[in-house]
Order: sequence, then structure tokens, then C-alpha cells
Amino acid sequence: MSERIKPRTLKGFRDYPPEKMIPREWIIETARRVYRSYGFSPIDTPALEHLEILTGKGSDETDKQLYRFEDHGGRPVGMRFDLTVPLARFVAQHIQTLGTPFKRYQIANVWRGENTQRGRYREFMQCDFDTIGTTSLSSDIEMVLVIHDLLTALEVGEFTIHINHRGVLNGLLEKLGLADKTVNILRTLDKLAKIGEEKVLRELTETIGATTNQADQLLKLSSLDGSNEGMLAEAEKLVTGTEAGEHGVSQLRELINSVAATLPSEAISRIQFAPSICRGLDYYTGIVLETTLNDLPGIGSVASGGRYDNLANLYTSQQLPGVGASLGLDRLLAALEELGRLEKVQTTAEVFIPFFDSERRNDYLQIAAKLRAAGIGVEFFPDAKKLGKQLQYANRRGFRIALILGGDEFAAAECQVKDLAVGESHTVALADDAQALIAKIRNILQP
Amino acid sequence: MSERIKPRTLKGFRDYPPEKMIPREWIIETARRVYRSYGFSPIDTPALEHLEILTGKGSDETDKQLYRFEDHGGRPVGMRFDLTVPLARFVAQHIQTLGTPFKRYQIANVWRGENTQRGRYREFMQCDFDTIGTTSLSSDIEMVLVIHDLLTALEVGEFTIHINHRGVLNGLLEKLGLADKTVNILRTLDKLAKIGEEKVLRELTETIGATTNQADQLLKLSSLDGSNEGMLAEAEKLVTGTEAGEHGVSQLRELINSVAATLPSEAISRIQFAPSICRGLDYYTGIVLETTLNDLPGIGSVASGGRYDNLANLYTSQQLPGVGASLGLDRLLAALEELGRLEKVQTTAEVFIPFFDSERRNDYLQIAAKLRAAGIGVEFFPDAKKLGKQLQYANRRGFRIALILGGDEFAAAECQVKDLAVGESHTVALADDAQALIAKIRNILQP
Repeated sequence: MSERIKPRTLKGFRDYPPEKMIPREWIIETARRVYRSYGFSPIDTPALEHLEILTGKGSDETDKQLYRFEDHGGRPVGMRFDLTVPLARFVAQHIQTLGTPFKRYQIANVWRGENTQRGRYREFMQCDFDTIGTTSLSSDIEMVLVIHDLLTALEVGEFTIHINHRGVLNGLLEKLGLADKTVNILRTLDKLAKIGEEKVLRELTETIGATTNQADQLLKLSSLDGSNEGMLAEAEKLVTGTEAGEHGVSQLRELINSVAATLPSEAISRIQFAPSICRGLDYYTGIVLETTLNDLPGIGSVASGGRYDNLANLYTSQQLPGVGASLGLDRLLAALEELGRLEKVQTTAEVFIPFFDSERRNDYLQIAAKLRAAGIGVEFFPDAKKLGKQLQYANRRGFRIALILGGDEFAAAECQVKDLAVGESHTVALADDAQALIAKIRNILQP
Repeated sequence: MSERIKPRTLKGFRDYPPEKMIPREWIIETARRVYRSYGFSPIDTPALEHLEILTGKGSDETDKQLYRFEDHGGRPVGMRFDLTVPLARFVAQHIQTLGTPFKRYQIANVWRGENTQRGRYREFMQCDFDTIGTTSLSSDIEMVLVIHDLLTALEVGEFTIHINHRGVLNGLLEKLGLADKTVNILRTLDKLAKIGEEKVLRELTETIGATTNQADQLLKLSSLDGSNEGMLAEAEKLVTGTEAGEHGVSQLRELINSVAATLPSEAISRIQFAPSICRGLDYYTGIVLETTLNDLPGIGSVASGGRYDNLANLYTSQQLPGVGASLGLDRLLAALEELGRLEKVQTTAEVFIPFFDSERRNDYLQIAAKLRAAGIGVEFFPDAKKLGKQLQYANRRGFRIALILGGDEFAAAECQVKDLAVGESHTVALADDAQALIAKIRNILQP
């Protein structure tokens, strides 16, 4: 080659080598398994959409960040920036054949030309599930149960699902005669944790023009504390007489009651009424939720979602209410790493077979095949290098077990099963059916 | 909404609704499981690469089909058109930390602005596995075993893995003094099945300028028939005296011998020496293979690959030999559909619970949770509609079992387990631990 090209990834994009991809696949697999266990079915949509499908759907920012170009037919196209807009387009296009309720999950990459200085990536994976076409609270309840099952399966430690209903704050705003200032007030209240009560109070009164009494009531609702029952009773008092507020409190009460009746008793403390949570201004209309890890509250919500009245009004006249949430895959991975809960391995197989006796390739291949038939993953080293080098490779990759089979072992019809984690070796008889070997390996893997 | 946007996908792109996506996920899962059982590890690379990484790597056609544009920083970028070029870039960039042998799989979408009139799609999934950094025949053998395990697991019926070695034909060309005409001769021989012996013979002599004797020998090699041993002996005679040819025959013999020693005896007829297979001119240098389905030979190869000397010479001076293959996901799906081997379902859960008694939501939720904890997928219908409507939904979606639990059943602590496939109902006692119910459901699912 005269001129070599420097191998490099684009700014804002990442390669995933095995040690990053193995835990990523594990989270995706776990999400799929949990979503499926509730009857959510997979769908996929194209990476590219007609530009008009994508523009003006998120914010000005997502419009600006959109990767857009003309395809070979001169059509303006864009790369999807989330999975919600494609879902709306998909459902509007196919709802007649899909039928309702339609429960789907989609796990796929999205692209945004983000400012990388904020630590953001330009390609990242979303992991969404939604139930479309029903207003039943059962689907809201199920959203909470799915998130609970998922985070439990991922062993992230203790977590809290913070739940609110948009009706509660709307009811209070209506009661206070502040409904026309909803957007600004929500934005201000959203800063409560960051800037504190005093500054929020000042902004509400001085900038937005609420009276001190109005601001006090708004802050009172946002700052409620205590048991779910106690907080809901307080919230009910604040919004009483408004349809939105009373409906919101009653839905929250029913949801929390059903979740508590379904989950094991130790899980109930994970469900928290959180009257300060809003999650976006335009999209959600009912239950909203965020999920934080108790050991790492600073990383923000790892699973968020809520109920909306109308998914696809930009594409169809059919009203499609729904409820759904999204798993924060990258945040969860970062959290599991920070919590030391990720094993650092580069291999997907448990057992390593060194190529020790170069005359015996077929024997090694046969043993490996028998173990695989028993569901045990096996890597057989391709080159008959020195055993020490091969075991170095096995240790670096993170194999759990090595099977030492040299001339002596073959002669004695034996095998050394080396537990690489604890450094112990066990001698096992080698029979045609490999049953003793399989039993010993299983015993090491799942003692 | 004043103006609605027509919901539609771009020309050449497809949505995957559940009934298409469920078998797709099943194939992907099976491929992952088999790849992993041999110690292949997952990697991923970005959808977008610097344009210079992608151009000039495939053919003029792939250059023309490339989706290319400028990113927000004005960088020329392209969407990957295969997984081999990104693998080469990835390995060149990371080989120092990865170490060799490096065994990876990657299952991801690629994009090509293809002419859709040829029935091609512009977004499709590739499903590749490779072993990089070793010349050991063990890795070639393993490639054959992986393909065998994969197609067996997918239950595609009988199949044939056609195997050749580039050295065999190269040896003969060298022996005949035709090495400088290799490209044109390979192109002509490749048409053998399509245009027949006579026309190939004429093209070899009249257009390419081979003597009749040379053409006869080329055709003789390409048309060999019979047992693997017999064909290899014939091929050996034809190439004897050339290093490339003798090496090729000996590698094929050893590979077929090892595969036969490892696979069950009924599998040996699936492995065929096929001296006419070339697979591309520049890339592969050793073993090459293609796989056809015996019941559907017309759809072409469903798994293809081979050995190459140098994966990444465009990006690094380090010589990286390797061997790998790619699963034809879309072809396999089409084949399974044509063979009637795909169940048409739209649900991922086995069990459907109608919302029959609207006062009993928490009871339904609790039963569903117990079944899920036992590994049984359950969908609980959100709305307390008429039972008939709910069962229609369950049948349309393809659930296997419905649990009928109305007021009478709750009063009697019983449940009707309805096998929707055969239309039978079984009455099962409802106890707190749900063990009888779980046992009956398992019994229906796996009799």
C-alpha cells in the first residue's frame, strides 16, 4: 500500500469492543426478556425516514441536530433521532392491521449531532416499550411493574420509582387561576432540586407574577414529604374541587395500591409519589415517572415514561392514547460499572481448551463439540503454542475454566479441569459420553 | 392539526411489525447463541464512518451506492455498507489491546442505495463472525462447524456446505501457464451452472485464448463429481507439482476429515468439496465456502465465507490473516417462510389473561406476576371488554393459552386453562403458590 488511511472513529461515535459489548448485550437481553414476559412484541423501523416525518417533532434542538441529506433519488431524508417519532409514524401507517391494544418494544440506535463537549454521544441506543390504544390504568400499572422487574433483574441495587400524575399540578394551577402560566411555572418548579426553595419562590412571584400565597401552595405541593398515603391526602386537599386534580390523585392512589398488591412486600418502598416530577411539557398527559438508583442518585433517571393522550396526531386523525417508558441503557451501564457490578470479561464462552498436543486436533474438537451439545460454551485455541502462552491468553480474556489435555492425559483417559478463578485443578476421567467432565464443569460454574 | 403528514416509509426501506420481527429476533438470538458457544464475542461499530474509511473498499458499485453527506462539523461521512470494512478499521485501530486470536461477531444493519427494481432493500442486516490473527486450519474447521450448528439449530431442513480452496484452481492455472488470465477465467467458470459447459468452453478458447486442452482441464476440475475422497484425488492429479494446488488439496482433505470426525455421522453428507466455487476475486485466499438449502437451492447461498491473508492492509502495516463467514439473514427468513417453518404469531407471551371481572384487577395482576416469576410470559388484557372480544384478540395475536377467571371461578378458587390451539379447557385449582396452574400450563406448552 502506498498510502495508508488512519483508522479512526468519527467525533462523537464509539466502538464497542467485547468488554463493552458483552454487558451491553446482557442489558438488552434482559430488557427483551422482561418486555416479552408482559406480552410486548418487538418491532423495528428504518434508520432513515422521509425528512418531513422527523422535522418539527422534537424540539428546535433536535431539528438542528438532525443528520439530514438527500438520498440517491433526490429525496430529503433524515436519520431517526428517537424511537417515539418513528413509532407514531409506524402506528399511524399500520394501525388497521395491528389492532389495539398494541404493545411493542423497540431497541435500536438513534443519532443526534449533539455537542460532544457536554459528554454526549452522537449515536446511542434507545430501549422503549409502549402500550398503544387503551386508556386503562392497567397499562400504567404494568409500566411500573416492567420497570421494577427490569431493574431487579439487572441487580442495580436499591432503586426508587418516582411517580406523579400531570393532573395533580394542573388541578392546582386551575384552582389557583394560573392555568395560562403552566409552562413557565412547570419550568421553574422543575429547578427546585437544583436552585432551592427560596430562589424558586422568588422566580414564581417576581418573574412569573404569582402571589405569595399562590407560590406557597405550589411549593407546598412540590415539597410534600412522608408516606405515599399521607402525601396523597395532602395533595388531595390542595387540588380538591378540580376534576383534573382529583382524577390525578385517584389514579395515583389506585396505581400505587395495585403495584403494592402485586409486588413482594419489600418492594413497596421503591414506589414513591413524587409531586414535583413533570417530564416534558407537551407530550405527557397522565401518569409520569422517573427512576433513580439509591446508590447513585446523581446520574439521573435510568427509566422514564408516562401516559399520553394522542401519540400520532401529526400523521392520523385516529386518536391513539398510550403509555410507555424508556430504559436509559448508557446510564445503566455507567452505573453498573461505577457500582462494580460488571464483570470485566472479553469472552462469551466459559471453557478454554488449549491446543496442547498438536497431533490431537480431532480429539479436542470432539470434546469441545460434546460440551457445546450440553450447553457449555467452549473456545479451542487455534495454534499449538506453549501452554503458558495459551493460559495467559485464557486469563486475559476472562475464561473461567481451562481443560488441560496433553499426551499424558490422553494416555490415561483423563482431563485436568483447571478452575482459573481460584487456581485449583481437578482430575476427571474422560469417557466417550463426557458426562463426568460436564458434571464437573457445571459444578464449578454453578456450585 | 391543520395539515397532516402522510405516514410512509422511504423507498427501499421496510418496517418490521411483530409477525416479521419475532422470527427475525429468533434467528439473531440463535446466531448469537451459536457464535458464543465457540467463544466468538460481540463487537459493535458506528453506523457512520469517515468517508475515506468507506470509499474504494468494496467495488465501484458500493461506492456509488454509499449514503454520504457532511456532518455538522463539515466532515465527509458515510453510512457503512457492510461489516467487513468497519471490522478492518476496528481491528487496525485496536489490535494492540485486543490481542490475537481475536474472535468476534457483529450483527448490525448496513445501508446501500441499491436499485430496488432488483428486489433489493436499502437497509439490511448482516450477521458476521470472524477469527483474526491466525492461519491455523482449526479456525477454518470451526467456521464449518459454526455454520453447521447454526443451520441445524434453525431447522431449515437438509443443507449442503460447498467447500473449496482457492489454491486448487490457482495451482491448475499455474500449471497450465494461465496464471495471468486468472480473473477472466474465474469469471467465465463462475457461469458454468448458468450457461453450460459448451458455452464456457467456447468462451475459454475463443475469448480468453486458452487451448482446447487447457480449457478441457479447467472444465474437468470444475465439473468433478462423486465422493469427497474421489474428487480430491482427481483434483490432486490435476494440480500435482504446484505448491498452491497441493497445499489446497491437503488443507481441504484435513478440513473435511476433521469436520467428519467431529460432527455426527448423518451430517457428513452435508459437507461437499465443490471445486467450482470461487467467491470474489481479491479478498479470499484459502478455504472458501457457500451453503445451500437442499429444498430451496434457487435462493442461493445462505451462509458464505472463507479465509483471507490480510484483513486490514489499507489501515495498518500489521498483517492480519483471518477466516470468517456471514449468515444470510433475509434469505434464511424468506426460506423458512417458504418452507412453512415459521409460526405466524404476533405475541411473545404464551398466556393470555382476559380482564373478565372488572372488580378483580389486583387478583389478575397477582396471578400474572406468579406465572412470570416461573418464567411464563403473560399478557393481561387492559380493558374489561366482553370475553368474546378479548378471546378474538388473543386468537388473532396467536396466544397459546387463555386463563378464564370470572366471578364463578374466583368463588370456587378455580381457573379455566383454555388451550387455544386445540380448543380444550381444563379446570385447575387456584392456590396461593399457583403451582397446579404453572404445572398445567407447562404441560400444555411442552407436552
